[in-house]
Amino acid sequence: MPAGLLLYTTATPNGHKVTVFLEELKAAYGVEYDVEKIDISKNTQKEPWFIKLNPNGRIPVLVDRNRDNFVVFETAAILLYLQQFYDKDGKFGFDKEKDPNNYSELLQWIFFAHGGVGPMQGQSNHFHKYAPEDIPYAKKRYSEETKRLYGVLEIRLQDRDYLVGPGRGTYSIADINVIAWIRFHKIAGIESLDEWPRLKDWVERATSRPAFQEGVTIPK
Amino acid sequence: MPAGLLLYTTATPNGHKVTVFLEELKAAYGVEYDVEKIDISKNTQKEPWFIKLNPNGRIPVLVDRNRDNFVVFETAAILLYLQQFYDKDGKFGFDKEKDPNNYSELLQWIFFAHGGVGPMQGQSNHFHKYAPEDIPYAKKRYSEETKRLYGVLEIRLQDRDYLVGPGRGTYSIADINVIAWIRFHKIAGIESLDEWPRLKDWVERATSRPAFQEGVTIPK
Repeated sequence: MPAGLLLYTTATPNGHKVTVFLEELKAAYGVEYDVEKIDISKNTQKEPWFIKLNPNGRIPVLVDRNRDNFVVFETAAILLYLQQFYDKDGKFGFDKEKDPNNYSELLQWIFFAHGGVGPMQGQSNHFHKYAPEDIPYAKKRYSEETKRLYGVLEIRLQDRDYLVGPGRGTYSIADINVIAWIRFHKIAGIESLDEWPRLKDWVERATSRPAFQEGVTIPK
Repeated sequence: MPAGLLLYTTATPNGHKVTVFLEELKAAYGVEYDVEKIDISKNTQKEPWFIKLNPNGRIPVLVDRNRDNFVVFETAAILLYLQQFYDKDGKFGFDKEKDPNNYSELLQWIFFAHGGVGPMQGQSNHFHKYAPEDIPYAKKRYSEETKRLYGVLEIRLQDRDYLVGPGRGTYSIADINVIAWIRFHKIAGIESLDEWPRLKDWVERATSRPAFQEGVTIPK
């Protein structure tokens, strides 16, 4: 029998954000999901059937068979959707109506990553690893901006274990959303995280969770 | 008497997103706000007092004096916060609990803009206008990616007037969030919007609203 959720994905930082969270939901609530691997080397994500799901032609895309095949694209929107419908006890997020300040801070840190760490580190990857020309100016621009953004997270973590939540914070989708990128720092030309000790501890704390370790192996 | 809301901002696409929405809220509900202009040419946004508000050192930042000086940074998070607390009739957004599919689609299109149009058009601006070196590869990379993203919006708008909402859609913060960027397309090396006729009509429809026209003049 098909599972209630179907995820189109591949092994990238954005794909891993969702599989890591789905593994947490599986461990906490027994949520089951199917995975269909998309071969981005063949541009499967640009085929007409996929563009109908996501006109941006990007993975991951979630189809919720439990809710009339509702489609969700954009990684962060998928995390927020899954948190709303499948994290019934609110372990990994905050209630918009009952806890609006933490809900807003969750969004603030998710947007910080979605408009900052993701695209800037992605550009650094491009110029360090994939660009057909060697362009020192662009390499430096994007690795330095990525480092600056890590420094912003270091400020936030100075008296916290996690980005959002009362006291020292609670492990939430805000952490998953950005750590899935940071763990690939070497591709972006950043050899070590030693410059940001609190960030480094936080990354290790999150990535040592069994659900994180399993999530980053999917799709096989 | 100070207004209930204080916005730190300057005249950029991200600043305008918030002032345009605040002008809509003023017209609809009489919401009042104070503006403090930040001089980014003097790096005021990197001073310690500002970093306490937003560790990322970026405008805009909202302080809600009505709610114990709660601070919100990241433009899209500010729009969602204002929609929650100040758009009482839900004219410019969708209810997360009662209308979760439209709420999710709102988030999907906001994230699409926040991780795509904003950063990619911003990079195109940089290489077309500000970079100290002429780097044709980077100019082409970012103006072409920006054009591709406009093409994604054109697909979405093929049978709609606005990005999100039932039928032909409703003017919402999802539209404001991206149109504030698109209207600066020339700086990014994109001379005209003629290639995307539905997008062009949509931009004209939104920017002809009195609140839009007023919002983009703030701060004076």
